[in-house]
Amino acid sequence: MRRHTGLILALDETDVGQAMAVARSVHDLVDAIKINWPLVLAGGPETITHLSEMVPVICDFKIADIPNTNRLIVEQAVDRGASGVIVHGFPGRDSIQAAVDAANDAEVFVVTEMSHPGGEMFTAPAAEAIAMLAVECGAKGIIAPATRPERIAAMRRLVGDLLILSPGVGAQGGSALQALRAGSDHVIVGRTISGADDPRAAAEAILRSMSD
Amino acid sequence: MRRHTGLILALDETDVGQAMAVARSVHDLVDAIKINWPLVLAGGPETITHLSEMVPVICDFKIADIPNTNRLIVEQAVDRGASGVIVHGFPGRDSIQAAVDAANDAEVFVVTEMSHPGGEMFTAPAAEAIAMLAVECGAKGIIAPATRPERIAAMRRLVGDLLILSPGVGAQGGSALQALRAGSDHVIVGRTISGADDPRAAAEAILRSMSD
Repeated sequence: MRRHTGLILALDETDVGQAMAVARSVHDLVDAIKINWPLVLAGGPETITHLSEMVPVICDFKIADIPNTNRLIVEQAVDRGASGVIVHGFPGRDSIQAAVDAANDAEVFVVTEMSHPGGEMFTAPAAEAIAMLAVECGAKGIIAPATRPERIAAMRRLVGDLLILSPGVGAQGGSALQALRAGSDHVIVGRTISGADDPRAAAEAILRSMSD
Repeated sequence: MRRHTGLILALDETDVGQAMAVARSVHDLVDAIKINWPLVLAGGPETITHLSEMVPVICDFKIADIPNTNRLIVEQAVDRGASGVIVHGFPGRDSIQAAVDAANDAEVFVVTEMSHPGGEMFTAPAAEAIAMLAVECGAKGIIAPATRPERIAAMRRLVGDLLILSPGVGAQGGSALQALRAGSDHVIVGRTISGADDPRAAAEAILRSMSD
C-alpha cells in the first residue's frame, strides 16, 4: 500500500451507489479504502473490482477459517482486485500462513485483538502471541485500535517494521494524531467521512488534524 | 432446519455450475447445504438465493466481527435466502448476540473450536466458555468436529438441547455414525459427496452408514 497521506477510509456502507459516491469524492486523499462483507453482499464481488480501479482496496473480511478455505477466500479477493486482505489471527499459525502464501503480491493484515467489549474475553489475552505469529508468517501488518494508543505502542515494540493500521478514529473516539504518535502507520476512519454531508471536507479536516 | 436424514452437504466448490449440479443431484437427501465465502465470491450473493430455492442453505461465513458488522452480514445473508448462518464465538458475547438478534427466524450456529492444527493454540482452550455463550445468547446450535467424538460428547453435556452440527466426516476421517452416537444431530459431509463421480450414490452410501 502506498503511504501518501496515512489515511484509510473504512467504507462501511451497504448502499453501493452511496459507497461509490463517497469513494469518488475522497479517493485521492486516502492511501486505501477498506470494505467489508456487507458491501460485497449488497453489491456483489464486482464491487471490489470497481473500487480497485479507483484506489487500492483492502478487503476487511476478517477471514477466520481453516487454511484451505482461507487460501480460497484470499485468492478470490485478490483476483477481484483487492490489494490487501484482513485476516483473524485467532485461528492460528497455519491459517495465517495460508492467507499470506495465497496473497502473493497483495498484503495481508492480521487482527491481533478486537477492541469492542466482547473482544476482551478471548481476543485480548491472545494479542501478543498473535502479533508474533503475524511477524513469523510474513504478514504485511497488523490492526491495532486507535482508541487505545497504549496498545499501539505495545504492538509496535513487538512487530518491528510491520505496518500498523488503526481503526476507531473519529466517531469511536480515537485520535488520529495520538495513534500515529504511538506508532501507527495508517489510521482508518469511517463514519466521520462517509457519514458527513461533505465527505471530502471531512477527510481534509482529518488530514489537517494528523499534521497538527 | 428440518431433520430429515441428519446429513448436511458442505458445498465447498468455487465452480458455480458444478456446485449447482451437485446440489440438484442430492437436495432431497440432505437437511441443508452449507456454503462458504469462496462460492459467494465466485458466483455472487445471488448464489445463496438460487440454492435456497432448492434446499435450506446454511451460510458458513464464520462471521467474526464487531456486533454491528455481524448484524449487517447476518441480515444480508438472511435477506438473500439463508436459513442459517455460522458465526465464530471468539469475538465474544455481544457479537454472538448481535447475530442471533439479527437472524430473526433464521438459525445461528456458533463455532466453539476449530479442529485444524492451528486451532489448538487459541480456539481449543476457549471452547467450553464459548459453548456456554452460545446457550446464553439463544443460538440454535454449535459446531463440533466429527473427527473428535469425545469433544461432541463433552459439548452435548454443556449445551443441553442445542443442535450439534459435525463437520469432518469422510475425507477428513470422521465417522458419521460415531458422531451421531456421541451426540451430534447433523453430520456435515463435503468432498466425499461433491467430489464423487456420482454424488447421489455417495450421499446414499453415507446415509446407509448412518443407520448401520
